[in-house]
Amino acid sequence: MGSKKSTQATAGRLGELALIRQIRSRAAHSSRSGLRLGIGDDCALLASRPGEELAVTTDLSIAGRHFRLDWHAPEAVGHRALARGLSDLAAMGARPVAAFLSLALPRELTTAKGRRPAWVERFLDGLLALAKAHQTPLAGGDLSEAPLALADIVLVGAVPKGKAMLRSGARAGHLLYVTGMLGGAAAGLARLSELAGETLAGRSKPPAIPKKLEVLLAPHLFPQPRIAQGLWLQRHGLASAALDLSDGLSTDLGHLCEESGVAAEVDAERIPTHPGATLTEALNGGEDYELLFTAPASKRMPRSIAGIAITQIGRMVKGRAGQPAVTLLTDHGLEPLKPHGWEHFS
Amino acid sequence: MGSKKSTQATAGRLGELALIRQIRSRAAHSSRSGLRLGIGDDCALLASRPGEELAVTTDLSIAGRHFRLDWHAPEAVGHRALARGLSDLAAMGARPVAAFLSLALPRELTTAKGRRPAWVERFLDGLLALAKAHQTPLAGGDLSEAPLALADIVLVGAVPKGKAMLRSGARAGHLLYVTGMLGGAAAGLARLSELAGETLAGRSKPPAIPKKLEVLLAPHLFPQPRIAQGLWLQRHGLASAALDLSDGLSTDLGHLCEESGVAAEVDAERIPTHPGATLTEALNGGEDYELLFTAPASKRMPRSIAGIAITQIGRMVKGRAGQPAVTLLTDHGLEPLKPHGWEHFS
Repeated sequence: MGSKKSTQATAGRLGELALIRQIRSRAAHSSRSGLRLGIGDDCALLASRPGEELAVTTDLSIAGRHFRLDWHAPEAVGHRALARGLSDLAAMGARPVAAFLSLALPRELTTAKGRRPAWVERFLDGLLALAKAHQTPLAGGDLSEAPLALADIVLVGAVPKGKAMLRSGARAGHLLYVTGMLGGAAAGLARLSELAGETLAGRSKPPAIPKKLEVLLAPHLFPQPRIAQGLWLQRHGLASAALDLSDGLSTDLGHLCEESGVAAEVDAERIPTHPGATLTEALNGGEDYELLFTAPASKRMPRSIAGIAITQIGRMVKGRAGQPAVTLLTDHGLEPLKPHGWEHFS
Repeated sequence: MGSKKSTQATAGRLGELALIRQIRSRAAHSSRSGLRLGIGDDCALLASRPGEELAVTTDLSIAGRHFRLDWHAPEAVGHRALARGLSDLAAMGARPVAAFLSLALPRELTTAKGRRPAWVERFLDGLLALAKAHQTPLAGGDLSEAPLALADIVLVGAVPKGKAMLRSGARAGHLLYVTGMLGGAAAGLARLSELAGETLAGRSKPPAIPKKLEVLLAPHLFPQPRIAQGLWLQRHGLASAALDLSDGLSTDLGHLCEESGVAAEVDAERIPTHPGATLTEALNGGEDYELLFTAPASKRMPRSIAGIAITQIGRMVKGRAGQPAVTLLTDHGLEPLKPHGWEHFS
């Protein structure tokens, strides 16, 4: 992937215009998604189909906060940055139309080292591979030198007017579902952290990952946004509310309850915990990018959508003043499930 | 402006959720622009009118690169960040639909100091005042703590299908125009730099700006995006190509020539140089955010649009291999006008 470009980069550091030209040539896969004009003008131009509205989301990925240059391979950083935005589209039931990338990078990350391509090229490899898998053209962005590596990803999607799945539609009595398995990203991060501690010993280089560990690390390094599942749910009108699990079930379910004005009970034993993950990681670990959604009990839910399991994990109930919005039902009865996900500036 | 919010902030540091709630409440001015769902869900939802397409642009503003925390008042930083994006819409002839803000900030910039509101609140004051002036709702974004202050602004606009003003439509024989005056931002920046050197002496605080200097500094601190002029040109179908002057005339005109496959001759004596600016600042200084555009000689151009002067500064000519794309006509004849604007990673 990108071998031709990597060859160019061995010539040395990329200037801004050269880097923009390279991104432009690599991003220039035309698309039927609705992109009419891509990189190269003051703005990109997008067209929605009649009866559609556009969904827009932006997500920051910052070195030292959302990723670590000494832990994460650049391909994984690029993949994860785009996955965050695609996952937001999935949660609305939107199809991707275009992505935009604002990239701030220290100069050394644009410099090839001997025969190794520059960090930014491998970052683009990871980002563009996921973009291609979801037929999402890279349509524009911005580029700047900075002392800190940072990517802001903007995703634009399209959804039939009035059909987007919102956070606010859950009602008492609706059932609560998730796609896939939970806790895999948190478990993978924990494993990566151990691995980095063991092998790095202070060296600023991604740890060598043994083949057999790749499966365990994949949910963290290469999370799969549930675009197909979100589209399916939207087209079948099954979900009354939905969001994606970026901050962790305990935190994100609280957001859904707040926006819908209801409470939720989660059955601990129903949680589809990822192999290798603990229940705590499944409840509080972020970045699984599975979909959390509700549906009236009368709707028949399939066991899987596009190959991904659907699991009922609880139900929505009336909220009561002074009571926690989210409770966990265990063998010991009901207990509050407090948000333990990430909050910045806290 | 924002005095009620400032009062809240004197309680101390703002957590992420509190900051998001505050932004949400301040941004919640509904709009007829096409915003159907704003801050609070996984994505914002936008609707274009029948026959329209959407224009999207992203612009990074980074501390130490696009602004300085010790030179620029937070209101100016917020204004300038949004102005960059609005100016890109103006260059396409698009009307603003919505803005998105991804904000990475050191913790201390979210902290109120005694009775003074937090930096982030004054930043929002500046940004939201300009947004209001152009009826542009803030529809979403992202927020993160970071060691560096950085804002990525996304603007979404709408333009009738096929009517956007592109960089690629200039032809030999077309005349070259600018709105307003050039060099004011560069002259203002130079003045601010002197002022900071004189008064700061190392203190990390914006310089006190004498009243009579405000007029000179305004083009730098509070540039006015030419939304009304861009819309007018688009609606009257007058411009064959357009872009906004963000990197400086010598650089941006080169972009226009490259995208259109033509060359340009600029008449030095016709340049509408801002009072207080030099010709060099007018030719090479960036961030004026005036519109540079071309039109067939047969089109009659008004002397001003919505109160802003329109000046013919040259003409488009055939490009010749091996010849500079942009030349400057002075008393001494034609000389190459080399791009002296800003390039990152160069």
